[in-house]
Amino acid sequence: MSLDNIRVVMISTSHPGNIGAAARVMKNMGLTRLYLVNPKQFPNYEATAMASGADDLLAQATVCSSFAEALTGCHLVLGTTARERKLQHEFIDAREAGVLSVNESAEREVALVFGRERTGLTNEETGLCHKLINIPTNPDYQSLNVASAVQIVTYEVMMSLHYLNEESKQESSHGDDKAESIDYASSENMERFYQHLQETLVDIDFLRLKQSPQLMPKLRSIYNRVRLKQEELNILRGILNKTQQLKNEAKSSETTDID
Amino acid sequence: MSLDNIRVVMISTSHPGNIGAAARVMKNMGLTRLYLVNPKQFPNYEATAMASGADDLLAQATVCSSFAEALTGCHLVLGTTARERKLQHEFIDAREAGVLSVNESAEREVALVFGRERTGLTNEETGLCHKLINIPTNPDYQSLNVASAVQIVTYEVMMSLHYLNEESKQESSHGDDKAESIDYASSENMERFYQHLQETLVDIDFLRLKQSPQLMPKLRSIYNRVRLKQEELNILRGILNKTQQLKNEAKSSETTDID
Repeated sequence: MSLDNIRVVMISTSHPGNIGAAARVMKNMGLTRLYLVNPKQFPNYEATAMASGADDLLAQATVCSSFAEALTGCHLVLGTTARERKLQHEFIDAREAGVLSVNESAEREVALVFGRERTGLTNEETGLCHKLINIPTNPDYQSLNVASAVQIVTYEVMMSLHYLNEESKQESSHGDDKAESIDYASSENMERFYQHLQETLVDIDFLRLKQSPQLMPKLRSIYNRVRLKQEELNILRGILNKTQQLKNEAKSSETTDID
Repeated sequence: MSLDNIRVVMISTSHPGNIGAAARVMKNMGLTRLYLVNPKQFPNYEATAMASGADDLLAQATVCSSFAEALTGCHLVLGTTARERKLQHEFIDAREAGVLSVNESAEREVALVFGRERTGLTNEETGLCHKLINIPTNPDYQSLNVASAVQIVTYEVMMSLHYLNEESKQESSHGDDKAESIDYASSENMERFYQHLQETLVDIDFLRLKQSPQLMPKLRSIYNRVRLKQEELNILRGILNKTQQLKNEAKSSETTDID
């Protein structure tokens, strides 16, 4: 078992030194795939200096122009936040995140997401996360460096794999038990669903975007929490299609009336 | 319970920036007592810069001229090493070290010890440690920065205290179960929602009960998993109401047509 399916995504990092430091701790913990969304300065000598021998990770890093692009192919997206927000997200700690990431990565792609140095993740960005990782810190001094956050979360990933390897060493004579492979919806398909949902709610006059900017985030929060299977997503999209069809029929008969 | 009895001891640190970074992560994790044994440069502006607001820990740091001096009053001494050595020491991982430190610190002084950047602890120094902490790292890239090692070990100390506090909170709240006051939807309201959902899906011709007896159970499974808040349930029922209204309008305009 390896950690090849787990990527670290850093969003709009200001200080290139933090990118280098993150690469170093990633490599220490056995992770290799770094995605950078709109880094302020990259490549950069400070990043290389701080990477201290992990510059291969920097050379292979994928630079993206949007967060969505960095999530391509991911089925589980975990965002990190220092503060507990008043969002309808499920919060887990870094230890749970480590276990979850390793379990999922056996079959699917996982993204561990880290926000800006000062301001972390925007609400729009947390909207793309299935769960949020909260690292409990000293309430009087919460300014956790972003590379430290990467350190803690990747450490937990490595420990989870470590314990798993220890266990399987002990159980290696038990025969092969293949983990169940549930077909969860990818984040791209979830995005398509949210687009479709928003479109439909506008169509049926339930949603006026300017008047209720909070409605879509609230709905996202519901469906992100549930972690939909692809089959379930298909059912929900079927309902949306039917609703839109109905709206069109209503509209065309309206037109007939006027004639 | 606090972490006042736990000290971090850094031996012969070469780079003052590492001392500052260590102070920062200590403060994040709720630790305050830093002991420096023969630091190469201290105080130093780089240390202060890297401490980033944890400079109070640097100001209060105890500078010692020998390791033994830094251990004055300690009953448990845990040394950190990146490599497993052929020593007759008991090795524990950082997690075990966190639990052990917090347990011991209730009554006694504990030292967490970190060696030089390149060469770690000497054999003489490990001789003064009761146990050694081994942090498993990527075998191809073991150069764990000393501040990262401080980060990992102090993180485990903080988590150990955190879990202990959570446990005692749960135990103490047996009388008044005030806990979290999230207004989750009651099961009656969930049932009403499922009725309403079924009705609406029949209305819009998405659901023919006899033909797809599995549809409602599948939808139930989605919304049961998510554990809806009452506010969220209200939004979903609002969507259903709007959809039914639309259906009625479509129907009545149909009727008009026939007339």
